[in-house]
Amino acid sequence: MRALLLMMLFLPLLSQAAEEVDPGPQKPAAIQLAEEYMAALTNRNYSKLAQFYDRETVLTDQMAGKSLTGSRDILAFLRRVHTYTQEYYFNADHLFYKGSRVVMIGNYYYKARGDLFGYPGESVTFSLPGVTTLKLDMENRRVEQQIDYLDYHTMEDQLSAHPSLAIP
Amino acid sequence: MRALLLMMLFLPLLSQAAEEVDPGPQKPAAIQLAEEYMAALTNRNYSKLAQFYDRETVLTDQMAGKSLTGSRDILAFLRRVHTYTQEYYFNADHLFYKGSRVVMIGNYYYKARGDLFGYPGESVTFSLPGVTTLKLDMENRRVEQQIDYLDYHTMEDQLSAHPSLAIP
Repeated sequence: MRALLLMMLFLPLLSQAAEEVDPGPQKPAAIQLAEEYMAALTNRNYSKLAQFYDRETVLTDQMAGKSLTGSRDILAFLRRVHTYTQEYYFNADHLFYKGSRVVMIGNYYYKARGDLFGYPGESVTFSLPGVTTLKLDMENRRVEQQIDYLDYHTMEDQLSAHPSLAIP
Repeated sequence: MRALLLMMLFLPLLSQAAEEVDPGPQKPAAIQLAEEYMAALTNRNYSKLAQFYDRETVLTDQMAGKSLTGSRDILAFLRRVHTYTQEYYFNADHLFYKGSRVVMIGNYYYKARGDLFGYPGESVTFSLPGVTTLKLDMENRRVEQQIDYLDYHTMEDQLSAHPSLAIP
């Protein structure tokens, strides 16, 4: 709906671009930084993550209604929830940006220790569709804001379909 | 990452659900209301849209860096941008909710009058991948907040690939 106004703004850029030789696909700096951050997050590389956060960084899980502010609280929280995580990665289906805002649509995969669910010695795996949006500080290479929208309902379905939950 | 904490919260619900007979798929009230709203929006049904907005409603286009507050300003804006719109709809790829928050991942399709782009008598079509999130007031059937994240870059690509832009 706001597309039309933006189209008009883009027109001068487009006519300019047409006159230049295509330099081939280049990954924008915002996307590169977002990918570095996501790698640090899913690799649970806390020393690297600490470089991305500062006292002002806000991490919000919109669907869980949870928000954390500042490097210290965010790192403490991540360490706590990842105690049970065996594998954790993010698969992006679609990724786009505007300026220093990056939107990543995809799936989070988790492999967690089953003892949390009463299944010691087993692993439970989940795939959570969702969206992670980042507001970056490109100059200082920091994350100013992260907002996650995760579909936790699909986790319930996967939990109930887990073989361990079948009556023996 | 917050998944593990939520899993623990969900466990009591899951064991309860297992004892009940599956009532079949039912569309949650929040999803129903979101779909009604999206229909009013894409059909440009302003009298119906007016019922969804109040003085507190906030509409934010995060990637355009634009935010509007209140029914009057939002409706005036929508009427203005839709002057050139011939067709407009939203196709949801994935839709989920938690409480009164609804997240819709999909594509917006636009068919607009080409005279806006210097092509009178023609139409230009666009498909914009994006995410629309809603915070609903279920009791009063209102939209408290709408945040859009739209991939405007794909619009540029589509514009530059438009046959009308080829040199005759």
